Amino acid sequence: MKSIESLDNLSLNLHGRDCLLTWEHSDAEIRATLLAAEALERLYRTNVSTRVFDSGLAVAIFRDQSTRTRFSFASAASLLGLSVQELDEKKSQIAHGETTRETANMISFATEVIGIRDDLFLGHGHSYMAEVAAAVEEGFRQGVLPQRPAVINLQCDLDHPTQSLADLAHLARTFGSLDALRGKKLAMTWAYSPSYGKPLSVPQGVITLMTRFGMRVALAHPPGYDLLPETLEHARRFAAESGGAFTHTDDMHEAFAGADVVYPKSWAPMEVMRRRTELLRASDSAGLAELEREGLASNARRRAWECDETRMAATRDGRALYMHCLPADISGVSCAAGEVAASVFERCRLATYREASHKPFIIAAMMLLTRCEDPAATLRKLVHRATPRRT
Amino acid sequence: MKSIESLDNLSLNLHGRDCLLTWEHSDAEIRATLLAAEALERLYRTNVSTRVFDSGLAVAIFRDQSTRTRFSFASAASLLGLSVQELDEKKSQIAHGETTRETANMISFATEVIGIRDDLFLGHGHSYMAEVAAAVEEGFRQGVLPQRPAVINLQCDLDHPTQSLADLAHLARTFGSLDALRGKKLAMTWAYSPSYGKPLSVPQGVITLMTRFGMRVALAHPPGYDLLPETLEHARRFAAESGGAFTHTDDMHEAFAGADVVYPKSWAPMEVMRRRTELLRASDSAGLAELEREGLASNARRRAWECDETRMAATRDGRALYMHCLPADISGVSCAAGEVAASVFERCRLATYREASHKPFIIAAMMLLTRCEDPAATLRKLVHRATPRRT
Amino acid sequence: MKSIESLDNLSLNLHGRDCLLTWEHSDAEIRATLLAAEALERLYRTNVSTRVFDSGLAVAIFRDQSTRTRFSFASAASLLGLSVQELDEKKSQIAHGETTRETANMISFATEVIGIRDDLFLGHGHSYMAEVAAAVEEGFRQGVLPQRPAVINLQCDLDHPTQSLADLAHLARTFGSLDALRGKKLAMTWAYSPSYGKPLSVPQGVITLMTRFGMRVALAHPPGYDLLPETLEHARRFAAESGGAFTHTDDMHEAFAGADVVYPKSWAPMEVMRRRTELLRASDSAGLAELEREGLASNARRRAWECDETRMAATRDGRALYMHCLPADISGVSCAAGEVAASVFERCRLATYREASHKPFIIAAMMLLTRCEDPAATLRKLVHRATPRRT
Repeated sequence: MKSIESLDNLSLNLHGRDCLLTWEHSDAEIRATLLAAEALERLYRTNVSTRVFDSGLAVAIFRDQSTRTRFSFASAASLLGLSVQELDEKKSQIAHGETTRETANMISFATEVIGIRDDLFLGHGHSYMAEVAAAVEEGFRQGVLPQRPAVINLQCDLDHPTQSLADLAHLARTFGSLDALRGKKLAMTWAYSPSYGKPLSVPQGVITLMTRFGMRVALAHPPGYDLLPETLEHARRFAAESGGAFTHTDDMHEAFAGADVVYPKSWAPMEVMRRRTELLRASDSAGLAELEREGLASNARRRAWECDETRMAATRDGRALYMHCLPADISGVSCAAGEVAASVFERCRLATYREASHKPFIIAAMMLLTRCEDPAATLRKLVHRATPRRT
Repeated sequence: MKSIESLDNLSLNLHGRDCLLTWEHSDAEIRATLLAAEALERLYRTNVSTRVFDSGLAVAIFRDQSTRTRFSFASAASLLGLSVQELDEKKSQIAHGETTRETANMISFATEVIGIRDDLFLGHGHSYMAEVAAAVEEGFRQGVLPQRPAVINLQCDLDHPTQSLADLAHLARTFGSLDALRGKKLAMTWAYSPSYGKPLSVPQGVITLMTRFGMRVALAHPPGYDLLPETLEHARRFAAESGGAFTHTDDMHEAFAGADVVYPKSWAPMEVMRRRTELLRASDSAGLAELEREGLASNARRRAWECDETRMAATRDGRALYMHCLPADISGVSCAAGEVAASVFERCRLATYREASHKPFIIAAMMLLTRCEDPAATLRKLVHRATPRRT
Repeated sequence: MKSIESLDNLSLNLHGRDCLLTWEHSDAEIRATLLAAEALERLYRTNVSTRVFDSGLAVAIFRDQSTRTRFSFASAASLLGLSVQELDEKKSQIAHGETTRETANMISFATEVIGIRDDLFLGHGHSYMAEVAAAVEEGFRQGVLPQRPAVINLQCDLDHPTQSLADLAHLARTFGSLDALRGKKLAMTWAYSPSYGKPLSVPQGVITLMTRFGMRVALAHPPGYDLLPETLEHARRFAAESGGAFTHTDDMHEAFAGADVVYPKSWAPMEVMRRRTELLRASDSAGLAELEREGLASNARRRAWECDETRMAATRDGRALYMHCLPADISGVSCAAGEVAASVFERCRLATYREASHKPFIIAAMMLLTRCEDPAATLRKLVHRATPRRT
């Protein structure tokens, strides 16, 4: 298979490591994730079993709600032969004051991957994942653990790599290849939503990843809805290195103008997210209620930030690819007024489902690349073994 | 195996479809379900692995409590090699106003079956299942989903096919064959329970299924405890077609008289169920509390509807087969007064467990018939492969 | 493999039985559990698949919080190829007054093992497990169940065999062999904790198991913190039979003096546990709150019972093996003052993780020994089959 051969030519340093932030991985590693995902999907669609593990656990830790990512993680685990075991922190003894490093080892004696969603608090999610990763690294080196589970970021405060890589796979599939993305304009814009406290990790993940492949990424949001400065820095640097571009504006029209791809999506004002973290730490429920009122009022002043037909008409040939991580706030469907006009969404609906369909294979690719010493060789074994997935 | 050969001779249209209402399936499809269940149970009991899938998900959606069906579904999934992933609507992002058709696709990228229990509201459960089925059908046809998951009704407002088919398998096993049921009298009767709001789907499922095999089905309940008119229509039509009979009375004695089989079981008055749906929609908690009082008072006036020794004595030779979907409300055991006298239940207890034991294999048969193009060929492959289930 | 050959020479009566209380099993059965665990771990670490079952359920019933044991059970199930299905008593219909014997059968149609944690109430946990075991025994003998699931005690009011056997494996590994434990002194001592209502099953499990292998077990606790008299009886008898010793004191220093192993761990006063059970039965919440105050006050008077550096210095060569079932209450880390000084715990931390690492393999061994007729033959088949666990 061509994707497996291409994988052979890449120099990777993923085995025994984690997938936490895309900007900590090389271009080769990003490409390898897409290639492995493609190979796994190809095998799946031709009824060849992709079971790599005969036993073992995939542990899921969700500190926030999730449907898509939860099912994508479970699908990926099943594809490779792992059993999902969720760590429900309410049913565990963690309340006793147990340390993270201890819990991390206790759940890992037969564990190949630990998927974590922890996206509610700025400054928290990534550091928790890094702490878990350091703990299992120590446990493995000290002989406590028979294997070193890979920690996979299923959305943190900084990045949402399984989403942004699925998005990248969707872009490559839509435009023909990763190389075909060079010079294409992507508008990552804020959009109005009547909901409160949405994480910043999707736009941060998109601007830091798409700038690496020569895309011209235009970030647009109202004043106050800034992303974390370090992610803007990464986006600028990647754009410079790849020959792409990164622009930053407070004008949705400007971002949409001539765009090949639009990604209109709501997120919370950064200051609101910072204050929320502090108020939660102080258990200040009155303060939290007041902050929520403020946040919703701030959003309400930007109702005009909707991806409507007029704005879509201003994109390249009036037919930009519309992207969303789902669920979208669709005006008149899931809320009175939201991120996207119903007619725009309905036209693009199945394409957004296709966008989402890459996620299970991206996660399975991350598992394969971090847990197998020679992933191309493992994939070739699957091809030769040719066990039918469905008898 | 004889059951596999018999399967060969049946003309089926189940592949790529759902199992929602037994009356939408042909007699051949009903027979096929029993034959496939029998074959799977035979393989299981002789330590031959019935694993058809090397990976893949079986999604469970329970909108009401369940023990038996939950474990039967999990057992069936395990028998065929699928991993259960539950969609807990409280832990998902569905509260955001996400549409059913979107959720249905998002949980289905590596999913072979979706089992749903949604039996609390008249007019709701079946339509929800049909909506999920239409959504995955669209997703599959549009290339979003690599496979088309089968939707399996684990109890809705209209029917409870995994229960009624397990009941039918139990009848066929007890009396020798499906054909031996011809002319046998089955009393499906209401019985007193101190509990409120039990669904109508079990009696509806029983009267619409057992009338198809020439049985003489006698439905009995107090005034006001009617079943949905369309299910009575189906029962009448099936009885006419099969040469059986369907009678409808408000006299428990009459139904029990000379019965070969009795199925005494409580359910809520139809009007109470209808009003409950409206009150819930209106979030009228005072109204709901009042309705519950009314419902319990209505039941309390029918305490005499108990399956006691006197009534059992009036059945054929005083030894009718006692059936129940469990758990039964047993007088003096699980409640002060209930559906069945303790002595009657205790005598029949193990038989009711055997009745329940068919459910995992019925569900596995539904999975096999809907997901495999040539189920008899698949079963034969399992026989020839002869992988031990336990090494 | 040597451990498999040794297994051959043992006369066992575990097939078709349960693992509830170690003192109901012969020395040969205890040794067999350790040997099978060792063999499974060896296969696991050399990438040989230990999958014994091609399908089937491992049911988990947790009536108390758990992290370690929950994941150990899930790991063991995965190692042998079983799917975990949790019985969440809140989501089931058990509230309807369903009997335990009925539920036990309903969850067991494709079930190989049922793991139960029920440790909150003195006089309850073990009897519940025994009731479940009797129910599935009846179901199997009466032909309701195709196989007889083994009930595995994941902690009850009397014993915590998966913990004590993992502890025993850790001791054997640390000192070289089971026989090397002869004459070694183990101090099982109470320790201060600011928490309330910890079960008695860990110390009871330790004193009844370690006395069987010639160890000199010294039990120490403050007055009022007695263990159940029957467990002291077992410990005395085993010590007499094995040539070990069992002493009982209220002086922590005395227990630590010259000890080769120390196991300082908090538990609740027996009288408090007894009264709690009664108050809970009476739903006396005021009484429960008062009892909790008393219990915490009683603990608070014993703050000096800490495993600190001074006490550790009094052990053999000042370097006794420190054991704990985790999570420990570490002074200054997980609480202001607790069971163990931070410096002691930190020095022994990785060793306690190693102690815990045996539990998944101990549980898998219990599953293997209870479910396979000739476990040594099964293990040899795994060796010869040599399926890689990770392709």
